[in-house]
Amino acid sequence: MSNQPDKIYAMRHSLAHIMATAIQRLWPTAKFGVGPVVENGFYYDIDLGEQKISEDDLSRIEKEMQKIVKENQTFERFEQSVDEAIEWAKTGNQPYKQELLNDLKRAGTTIAKDLDASELGLEAQEGSKVENVSFYKNGDFTDLCRGPHAESTGKVGAFKLMRVSGAYWRGKEGNPQMQRVYGVAFDTDKELRQYLAMLEEAKKRDHRKLGQELDLFLFSDMVGSGLPLFTPRGTVLRDELAAFSNELRQQYGFEKVWTPHITKKDLYEASGHWAKFGDELFLVKSQETSDELVMKPMNCPHHTRIYASQPRSYRDLPVRYLETTTDYRDEKTGELGGLNRVRALTQDDSHVFCRSDQIEDEINNLLTAARDLYATVGMGLRVRLSYRDDSDAYLGAKELWESAQGQLKNAVIANGLDYFEQEGEAAFYGPKIDFMASDALGREHQVATVQLDFVQPERFGLEFTSEDGSKQQPVMIHSALLGSIERFLSVYIEHTAGRFPIWVAPEQVRLITVNQELVTTDFAAKVLQEAKSLGLRTTVDNSNESVGKKIRAAELMKVPYTVVIGEKEIESGKVVARIRKDLEVATEHQPIGVSEFLKTVANEAKSRVNKTSL
Amino acid sequence: MSNQPDKIYAMRHSLAHIMATAIQRLWPTAKFGVGPVVENGFYYDIDLGEQKISEDDLSRIEKEMQKIVKENQTFERFEQSVDEAIEWAKTGNQPYKQELLNDLKRAGTTIAKDLDASELGLEAQEGSKVENVSFYKNGDFTDLCRGPHAESTGKVGAFKLMRVSGAYWRGKEGNPQMQRVYGVAFDTDKELRQYLAMLEEAKKRDHRKLGQELDLFLFSDMVGSGLPLFTPRGTVLRDELAAFSNELRQQYGFEKVWTPHITKKDLYEASGHWAKFGDELFLVKSQETSDELVMKPMNCPHHTRIYASQPRSYRDLPVRYLETTTDYRDEKTGELGGLNRVRALTQDDSHVFCRSDQIEDEINNLLTAARDLYATVGMGLRVRLSYRDDSDAYLGAKELWESAQGQLKNAVIANGLDYFEQEGEAAFYGPKIDFMASDALGREHQVATVQLDFVQPERFGLEFTSEDGSKQQPVMIHSALLGSIERFLSVYIEHTAGRFPIWVAPEQVRLITVNQELVTTDFAAKVLQEAKSLGLRTTVDNSNESVGKKIRAAELMKVPYTVVIGEKEIESGKVVARIRKDLEVATEHQPIGVSEFLKTVANEAKSRVNKTSL
Repeated sequence: MSNQPDKIYAMRHSLAHIMATAIQRLWPTAKFGVGPVVENGFYYDIDLGEQKISEDDLSRIEKEMQKIVKENQTFERFEQSVDEAIEWAKTGNQPYKQELLNDLKRAGTTIAKDLDASELGLEAQEGSKVENVSFYKNGDFTDLCRGPHAESTGKVGAFKLMRVSGAYWRGKEGNPQMQRVYGVAFDTDKELRQYLAMLEEAKKRDHRKLGQELDLFLFSDMVGSGLPLFTPRGTVLRDELAAFSNELRQQYGFEKVWTPHITKKDLYEASGHWAKFGDELFLVKSQETSDELVMKPMNCPHHTRIYASQPRSYRDLPVRYLETTTDYRDEKTGELGGLNRVRALTQDDSHVFCRSDQIEDEINNLLTAARDLYATVGMGLRVRLSYRDDSDAYLGAKELWESAQGQLKNAVIANGLDYFEQEGEAAFYGPKIDFMASDALGREHQVATVQLDFVQPERFGLEFTSEDGSKQQPVMIHSALLGSIERFLSVYIEHTAGRFPIWVAPEQVRLITVNQELVTTDFAAKVLQEAKSLGLRTTVDNSNESVGKKIRAAELMKVPYTVVIGEKEIESGKVVARIRKDLEVATEHQPIGVSEFLKTVANEAKSRVNKTSL
Repeated sequence: MSNQPDKIYAMRHSLAHIMATAIQRLWPTAKFGVGPVVENGFYYDIDLGEQKISEDDLSRIEKEMQKIVKENQTFERFEQSVDEAIEWAKTGNQPYKQELLNDLKRAGTTIAKDLDASELGLEAQEGSKVENVSFYKNGDFTDLCRGPHAESTGKVGAFKLMRVSGAYWRGKEGNPQMQRVYGVAFDTDKELRQYLAMLEEAKKRDHRKLGQELDLFLFSDMVGSGLPLFTPRGTVLRDELAAFSNELRQQYGFEKVWTPHITKKDLYEASGHWAKFGDELFLVKSQETSDELVMKPMNCPHHTRIYASQPRSYRDLPVRYLETTTDYRDEKTGELGGLNRVRALTQDDSHVFCRSDQIEDEINNLLTAARDLYATVGMGLRVRLSYRDDSDAYLGAKELWESAQGQLKNAVIANGLDYFEQEGEAAFYGPKIDFMASDALGREHQVATVQLDFVQPERFGLEFTSEDGSKQQPVMIHSALLGSIERFLSVYIEHTAGRFPIWVAPEQVRLITVNQELVTTDFAAKVLQEAKSLGLRTTVDNSNESVGKKIRAAELMKVPYTVVIGEKEIESGKVVARIRKDLEVATEHQPIGVSEFLKTVANEAKSRVNKTSL
């Protein structure tokens, strides 16, 4: 991908204008909304009255755009006063542009908070005074626009229109519905082709599709949207990933705790979450008592209760709690889809209560754990260090912040992590580290997080007795390595295309019998028993189908190792495993003893070696 | 304990009369309610107007009772008509007896549904006609009573009054509040002494007390009543027990699944639970959607959704799901106390979907699993087989019931389980097996259950393709081995008195340093590392306290193995472990190598050998 963000931005922006030019040629009465640059491309919102743009129209528009590219029209910039601009919109019968300009005028040509300056072609800050607005003109087409643009319509790289969808004017329900035509664009043809191929691949890997094909999870109308149910295969994924995440922290002294899923809202009033997130919570009504309860949306307040249940001395710190538990958040149904966004999110959550001089060591451990986890699942990792800025929007002593931010950075550097820093991105209660993992398709996903918290210990009055006998306040460190297991799975299933490495594969070995004779099924049963005693997730396909059909069935389920059991295998006690193609194992085609084979696979599973080429 | 239930029943019943006689002597205006026999004893509800019976009064009453015992008054039975009986109550100024008799008369001297015949001294069935009521007289005291009684007041065994508490007349709030004087009674002095000693021991073992002393769980006002939080130590207990329970079933092909804790009420409308248990559910309100949700009180309907998500053939059956998950039931706050009754109950739940000819094998497996589990925790087990009767209160074909009941019984016999059978005790949807476990104090607790279900498969339209291609309905088998883990823990903590066997002990090994010198702490750290790598839950007490004080601290926490580390141990590399007194291990007082010691303990933990003498 291009490393020239300004150049590609200008190209995409220019393509929005070129598309509008093409649409105006095809539908001269088209009324234009806004046409911004978005990730990987651009769109324009258009009102064609009763006329609907079909998917077929996209190629017509594209052809017209190619003509305009060939015409190599220069982009010319000019300015007008707001009144002149309004006149321009009126004359051109562009009511949406006119509305934007009128809003600007009504606000005394001051950029008001609810006015998007970029919609107006203005590069202006909120509250600043506007003298003129700028326009860009190419050929017969003129648009209110702040730029920048490519030099001419001939220099806009490679593009493709992708789809058309409905969109309310200015995103508000009740406003006129416009048509949003969306395209992608890159510097070179090669980049475009790569991107389209990636999309094609992503479609094949869609976790909702694979979730069904590989029998991993399901939704039920009777249970409700955003509330997935996991089959035995899907539950293996959940459990293996959570167990690994826990193990990585248990080696650093984290201990599991357990808290209930409902709680009196008093707890969240005390923590401050009620005031901030009260309307995102599921309310729970007791029919037997007058208790006002909620579903827990996070676990930190509960963990403070466990910390506070015993007196703590400086020698007891750090106290480290770990809990993989399901939190509930009341998302809008429209926002739900697959595992990406659910209402039941299982977090591999943990909390450290420590002294301020212990922050660096603790962060260091958590970063090492996260690094190990993402290396094992084969995803690239980079982190954002989010610091406070000079404003007074932050709680806690400034020296504590500075010391803590320094400790975070030291730990990130010590772990050799790719990082960048952002001031003003911290939470009000403390600085944090966000983890971005990149998948096999090059997409980046925000996953784990490590956050310091100076505020909850204060609100809950947590304390420990220091060496000099005085009462001191611990610092809390929130962290999750996988984040939400459901969301992580939505990423991980697509990352692996369902070809899970051996340690996490729901079915690790499948035994296929060549016939249903007793000697065959007995042998298969014996091998199954041995495999199970080694902890291998193994099944037998003893159905009355052809071996070819059985092998294809195993391939469809992406089973790592398939072993055909016939006369030869029974006589020799040796097998040749069929290995899933992506697995980078030395493809030994020599038969080996059954026990030796099973032990090798079991060791591979135990070591969590990632042999898949994703 | 006595094996003569009728004899001890008559003794306890007679003691209720003797106590009433004593109270009438002490407070001649006493008005009497009812005085039944209860487990281990008897009580009488008494109205003394403004006068309150104190704990001190109990010994006065007891002394008076002893006098009456010495007087050896004969119990004489006689009968009267209902009208005569009403006259008797009026004359004696006994308004409560009068009310009962009036109710009987109002109902046309027919036993109505809401009239407890035993309160009236009647041995009569609902709906039957009453001619006379019976009385028992001893000395000056006469009471409406159906008997039976001991021959005389001198033959009533050993007894003790335990407490006095408030009780509403006929158990209805709003009715006059009476005083309930409660006593225990046994055939012999020895039995009484044993029982009182057991109570004393039970008090020491109270799981709420031990839960705090051993730092296992806590309640928080901010979280709410009936909603326990588990500390790291308590979580070990939960996890170890659940893991064992799962393991015992996984060997029989059970596979873990996962379902969310909230669900649309549609699911429970479909299952039929809504109509039956709707008012015991926590209602969940979404602020973002109009979804009507509830907290799941059980998991079977969810598991039917997973079963139904794939077509099933007769060859795929049995399908076996396992889920340790927390259900929520809206208990009255007054009913909650410790872990015995909670609003968040974690079930080690499982469901089998099988053909009717597979019932016996499946039940057999579940019984073996339950037997193994209770043998390992050292509790006696007996089971009740609950069958249908001849009424038409049961759903499902009668032949299916008969076949199923036969299969249940076969499996119980094959497992050599102590059992008894009860007709008419089945659920309407299928026969069941209830498990009663007896603890170290001889108390019996209902724990696990295995239930057949012919109805949910019908309601949810579950099916499988049979060998002949037709669609058939599977049978469901619900089961839980521990039942509610919280409730099981309330029993188990008291059963063990917190002296957990090594495999379940939250802290298995404690290392105690004799001083804080580097050579000592280094050695302790090395041993700790080795212990942890063997999976042993190990801590180091490196505090600046005397060795004696540290040993006492370990004893208080009931740590199975404590190892003191000093100069001798460091030089020789050998240790002598202090072993918790109840552990039946060969008390080797010879020093053994550290690694050897740790490996022995690790093997012991792994094998789940129960070496505690409870």
